[in-house]
Amino acid sequence: MTVQLVGAGPGEADLLTVRAARAIAAAEVVVFDRLVDRSVLDLISPMADRHDVGKTPGQSSSQEATNELLIELGRSGRRVVRLKGGDPFVFGRGGEEALALTSAGVAFEIIPGLSSSLSGPLAAGIPVTHRGISRGVTIVTGHLIDGECNSFVRLANPELTLVVLMGVAHRAEIARQLVLGGLTPDTPVAVIERAYTASQRTVRTTLQRLGNTDIANPAIIVIGAVAAMSLNDITTELATAAW
Amino acid sequence: MTVQLVGAGPGEADLLTVRAARAIAAAEVVVFDRLVDRSVLDLISPMADRHDVGKTPGQSSSQEATNELLIELGRSGRRVVRLKGGDPFVFGRGGEEALALTSAGVAFEIIPGLSSSLSGPLAAGIPVTHRGISRGVTIVTGHLIDGECNSFVRLANPELTLVVLMGVAHRAEIARQLVLGGLTPDTPVAVIERAYTASQRTVRTTLQRLGNTDIANPAIIVIGAVAAMSLNDITTELATAAW
Repeated sequence: MTVQLVGAGPGEADLLTVRAARAIAAAEVVVFDRLVDRSVLDLISPMADRHDVGKTPGQSSSQEATNELLIELGRSGRRVVRLKGGDPFVFGRGGEEALALTSAGVAFEIIPGLSSSLSGPLAAGIPVTHRGISRGVTIVTGHLIDGECNSFVRLANPELTLVVLMGVAHRAEIARQLVLGGLTPDTPVAVIERAYTASQRTVRTTLQRLGNTDIANPAIIVIGAVAAMSLNDITTELATAAW
Repeated sequence: MTVQLVGAGPGEADLLTVRAARAIAAAEVVVFDRLVDRSVLDLISPMADRHDVGKTPGQSSSQEATNELLIELGRSGRRVVRLKGGDPFVFGRGGEEALALTSAGVAFEIIPGLSSSLSGPLAAGIPVTHRGISRGVTIVTGHLIDGECNSFVRLANPELTLVVLMGVAHRAEIARQLVLGGLTPDTPVAVIERAYTASQRTVRTTLQRLGNTDIANPAIIVIGAVAAMSLNDITTELATAAW
């Protein structure tokens, strides 16, 4: 009667925590999402049952169905791992699954993962905070735009970095609101597509040009002075070296 | 001529990433901070050289001295790991060390870690985002108070969770400014001391009472409706179980 809610991290399997890697390898059943990297799925035992509840547009398992599945599997007495991309509790709806399990009396354990909101920018050499440049970071999703009118206006704060997940569709409106809120149109923006995967791509732009910049999901949008930084020019070379 | 800048995560060694654990075990020299957990230091090879540059009040290595040490060690040709608590680039000044290494022509690699800003709250069963309760998260340090006047007033946003690191000393003033900014005095606050260590302690309070609440560093202050949540009541029992 136990389920482990496990963060799969941003991509490559060696960015799992040691605790998560062990849990995955020991699992008898794994329930996973669309955003979990192939290399992570390769750690699952060939004997384990797999349930893909990936939410793709038009063909989605509902959150309710996933909750029900976890409860049913949890009651089976097998070792169940629920694997979610990034960290399950940073826009991962892990909290909803945890509450559903609690209501059903199924015990669970939480194993955190690297959130792509913080490690994704780093994959492009961007520190989300940096002395003299950024004094903090705000993380939201593009869906914020569907809520209160002008939600992004009040997030315009030149002291902080703003990280927007799932913001590609609304990027023009997000930029408009941030400028309305007081950020200058030439505020640096970096977009990191598919962070920590073999096909990672970084696009550098500005708030003014963001709406016309060609980018594709999954992408992390970083807005603020740190978005002009690139710490790992040297790292890139190193990654191809031998050690 | 290579240095690895490695995030040590929030505490226990199995919350390192697999990549970080491997780097630490393979290191010939390790330079570490005060906030790195004992269990992480135990992974260092007995043959490796150790440099403790922990910053304790009154007896601190300067950041400049640490930068110089890393450059010197990097030039020695040995495998150097620079180990920092949490993630080196979320208030970890990893960016400054990376830039110093770049200036000196010393190659480096960045290995991210779990930031205590996101995983610390989770250790107390608090998801930093939760549908219908919090639409995002802002992470700052208490030092923000030393900057612009009333910096925290503009961070008062009932849609978002606010996580304050190193905020214990200024907690009364932080609470005052947030109420001034529009948060209600009964806004839930949770303080997590020594997250993911054997002596972890969580204190639940409100903005109004925060100034008079007895808490000690190192602590993470979580402000917002999610701070009243506790997902892992069951987990606590599970942690003492056999598997």
